[in-house]
Amino acid sequence: MLRDPSVKYRPFPTIDLPDRQWPGRTITRAPRWLSTDMRDGNQALIDPMDGEKKTRFFELLCKVGVKEIEVGFPSAGATEFDFISGLVQQGKVPDDVIIQVLTQSRRDLIETSFESLRGAPRAIVHLYNAVSPAWREVVFKMTRDEVREIAITGAKVLRDCAAAQPDTDWLFEYSPETFSTAELDFSLEVCEAVMDVLRPTPEKPIIFNLPATVECATPNVYADQIEWFCRNIRNRDSVVVSLHPHNDRGTGVAAAELGLMAGADRVEGCLFGNGERTGNCDIVTLALNMYTQGVDPELDFSDIDQVIKTVEYCNAIPVHPRHPYAGDLVFTAFSGSHQDAIKKGFEAQGKRNDRIWNVPYLPIDPADLGRSYEAVIRVNSQSGKGGVAWVLEQDKGLKLPKRMQAEFSKHVQGLADETSRELNAADIWGLFERVYLPGEKDRFALVDYEESGATGSRTFVGRVAIDGEERSISGKGNGLISGVIDALAGTTGPNLDVVDYSEHAIGHGADAQAAAYVECRTEDGRTIFGVGIDADIATASVRAVLSAANRA
Amino acid sequence: MLRDPSVKYRPFPTIDLPDRQWPGRTITRAPRWLSTDMRDGNQALIDPMDGEKKTRFFELLCKVGVKEIEVGFPSAGATEFDFISGLVQQGKVPDDVIIQVLTQSRRDLIETSFESLRGAPRAIVHLYNAVSPAWREVVFKMTRDEVREIAITGAKVLRDCAAAQPDTDWLFEYSPETFSTAELDFSLEVCEAVMDVLRPTPEKPIIFNLPATVECATPNVYADQIEWFCRNIRNRDSVVVSLHPHNDRGTGVAAAELGLMAGADRVEGCLFGNGERTGNCDIVTLALNMYTQGVDPELDFSDIDQVIKTVEYCNAIPVHPRHPYAGDLVFTAFSGSHQDAIKKGFEAQGKRNDRIWNVPYLPIDPADLGRSYEAVIRVNSQSGKGGVAWVLEQDKGLKLPKRMQAEFSKHVQGLADETSRELNAADIWGLFERVYLPGEKDRFALVDYEESGATGSRTFVGRVAIDGEERSISGKGNGLISGVIDALAGTTGPNLDVVDYSEHAIGHGADAQAAAYVECRTEDGRTIFGVGIDADIATASVRAVLSAANRA
Repeated sequence: MLRDPSVKYRPFPTIDLPDRQWPGRTITRAPRWLSTDMRDGNQALIDPMDGEKKTRFFELLCKVGVKEIEVGFPSAGATEFDFISGLVQQGKVPDDVIIQVLTQSRRDLIETSFESLRGAPRAIVHLYNAVSPAWREVVFKMTRDEVREIAITGAKVLRDCAAAQPDTDWLFEYSPETFSTAELDFSLEVCEAVMDVLRPTPEKPIIFNLPATVECATPNVYADQIEWFCRNIRNRDSVVVSLHPHNDRGTGVAAAELGLMAGADRVEGCLFGNGERTGNCDIVTLALNMYTQGVDPELDFSDIDQVIKTVEYCNAIPVHPRHPYAGDLVFTAFSGSHQDAIKKGFEAQGKRNDRIWNVPYLPIDPADLGRSYEAVIRVNSQSGKGGVAWVLEQDKGLKLPKRMQAEFSKHVQGLADETSRELNAADIWGLFERVYLPGEKDRFALVDYEESGATGSRTFVGRVAIDGEERSISGKGNGLISGVIDALAGTTGPNLDVVDYSEHAIGHGADAQAAAYVECRTEDGRTIFGVGIDADIATASVRAVLSAANRA
Repeated sequence: MLRDPSVKYRPFPTIDLPDRQWPGRTITRAPRWLSTDMRDGNQALIDPMDGEKKTRFFELLCKVGVKEIEVGFPSAGATEFDFISGLVQQGKVPDDVIIQVLTQSRRDLIETSFESLRGAPRAIVHLYNAVSPAWREVVFKMTRDEVREIAITGAKVLRDCAAAQPDTDWLFEYSPETFSTAELDFSLEVCEAVMDVLRPTPEKPIIFNLPATVECATPNVYADQIEWFCRNIRNRDSVVVSLHPHNDRGTGVAAAELGLMAGADRVEGCLFGNGERTGNCDIVTLALNMYTQGVDPELDFSDIDQVIKTVEYCNAIPVHPRHPYAGDLVFTAFSGSHQDAIKKGFEAQGKRNDRIWNVPYLPIDPADLGRSYEAVIRVNSQSGKGGVAWVLEQDKGLKLPKRMQAEFSKHVQGLADETSRELNAADIWGLFERVYLPGEKDRFALVDYEESGATGSRTFVGRVAIDGEERSISGKGNGLISGVIDALAGTTGPNLDVVDYSEHAIGHGADAQAAAYVECRTEDGRTIFGVGIDADIATASVRAVLSAANRA
């Protein structure tokens, strides 16, 4: 890299629009969506889709609810032409979906494009030519007038070809390609010249698509360009302003959002942001961004995993694990404080009745995308008590008391540090068993027991294996737990005080189990937790005390 | 998904800032960069880094030129503490780099954090607590006053711990966490309360980091929040305003850019956008976005492949093929018109002497990132003549005449359609050989030849295998090519007219070869191209004519 890039790179000039309105606006309704997955997306694949994949992608787009689909570049080759022609001939286009094809401004290519659509009830033909200085000077070696003439000539061929196939309801789209790096007045001039040929009306408007062919500035500059165009184009009511942002600076979604605030009506993009180089703007993210603001995007991603699966199959490009809304890791919290907040958020959500989604760290309810809550909290060495407690509760139905959560999470962190990897539910459960539940090395193991006596003065008599030798022990107390504590004190066992106690059922009905937790203090002031699980609620308590004794 | 998400999701309220200044500004210098790869990034990994990976990541960040590095969360566990303490004790922190640690606002955690830094010449301790309503109400169940008190109490411990370790030059950062979803006046109130405790000066300012902990609105809203804060915070000259955008809506980079325009001084992020859920804002993209505008980002990505390799190793998360500047596919053009424009752009670049980068479709010179041009153009069924010509020129040194490029690209498209996969240079060269260069099935094969006669009237006498039978043929013309054409016409060969002819050297010096191209017309009006390659420039011409004859 150059220590001083200003010798080689120039800042993109700002737009003079001091009274810009878009920064004060919000997006309040869905735009018209155009998927260019099968054109811009497809042409940027290492291995472009074959007919089977194209069919699958087309069906997915229809299922998601996209109503305008750019299906290809019919003049680019036989594969493209045959697929498009096949869609039309075999009546595969739903009544409420309109297909679009792209063509350069050359008579033979335009004619081929119309030919591919023969028999379609409706279709959009999308004409483009690049208009910016770099393209005029470097690629075409043409003047502004000559470049405008290319557009006019193409528009005339469009008009004539449409007249020659009158059974189709033709719509037109024109892109002043490289709009984002062109002089605004020239883009406007070319669009208006095209308008003069194609004579759109409010009932049958022309689509002017304004691409950020290469993203070249911060996204506010694109918004300024769009607002300028919307404010200056003649016959605005006969024009649909369409956005086509690329993502070279990683701000394609932002450019689309600010562009919509600036007055655009329509967005061209691809699912998960496929497309040339860094991709087109991502329709999934854009739509779900609207969704989380209470705006119906009019696209359905309620089974996002199926959408991902199909797109990954067709494009042979993975969706990144951190891709907004869709990545494997985006509903996952490893950090302890995040897990704790999410856990509390779910609890509060459950108690409220307002239906409003408001869970910390989760901008969308995973269930709305067909995802489950289970994956939300995962455990590694950065996780705290909240996450560990969540996993035990989700997986085993155990609701650990708060101070015990803190104790157990230290064991979990130790294991995570030791293994240096993510811990799954089985790891955590295995550790929990080793720490709290009966094991071979335990000093005390319950064989059986009886309890008797009047309320408030109970006697516990139990058979307990102590250091491998079965003995009968007994104790008195105002209840079962104090009886067991008393019995243990009469052996070689520890003297324990019970500080806290809780119990709950696991599951429902005949198979339900009970879990009991005791927090004890030893004579030397240490805090010891014990856990007992049993089909019988009383026996679980006894086991919990023995668990604490074993751990003391 | 809900057909009407407005029953469940609420739009984020806009900021009342009608005289906002940021939309008219640009970014003109690099911010202070803080990498949180080893903290926010690390805690969001399935398998957090072990000591070896952390060391490697730290060294990479230093090499790239990051001067402020958040190295972890010392109170989170032994792995974290020991690594941080080890960095300090072993003197691994370069003199011009300052390390930062994060802590929650609890005395024991803050004390542990200071302890981990014992012996450091300089360090930043970063205190945070969440301040937004959702956190106050759902997570902490606290009033505004109580939440402010957490910050003040923490700041006091910070002050006291710093005083107790006076050999270190302590700097402080405070984050009103969840700033982006908090009431602006409350964030300001808490920050000013912290300021009252820590008493920053212009010489020793406090860092106020304003996180979009969860991205919750379009990026212009974040910019409004930042501008509001910058305009309202007391003692602005004693404050460093820092951004910490996340990427839940896919607009983290945009939020950082607009936030810088709104007056921020510093950006916290991760390489390639790692971090909780959808990640932090991506420092690489942000820096290179500045670079392409002629602004020195003060970070060095001149060997981006090495940066990718290290980050992928440490994080075990891949960089996406379409990741801006870094992905495998972002300097690749498959589309014919793109390839053609890029080819012309490189040619024009080579001819100009202004050093200004201006190549269509490439916002940055791949060479500035240590990447080569070779990968720029790749060929599939969507590719046109420009790309094919580029590959032959890059790989074999052949400069096909323009009309011949068009002819050969049709062969290439046919093969790409047939195989439905990307074609590599070997595929294209193999096809070129089969189409134009001598093969077993050819009718005409040169054995040897002589040429003689006066200038303008030359005689060609050649031994040529025709249909497998060696014959001597001769012809006359004003030069070698017309002589060969004349000789062929006297056999069973085709009558050809030469329409165009060109020739060039391949390579330099003793090993140089010559390539000759002829464009001929047959008696029935067809155009036939022929190619000859030979160490001798004259023989290459003869071979080119025979190639055309074979193809006629």
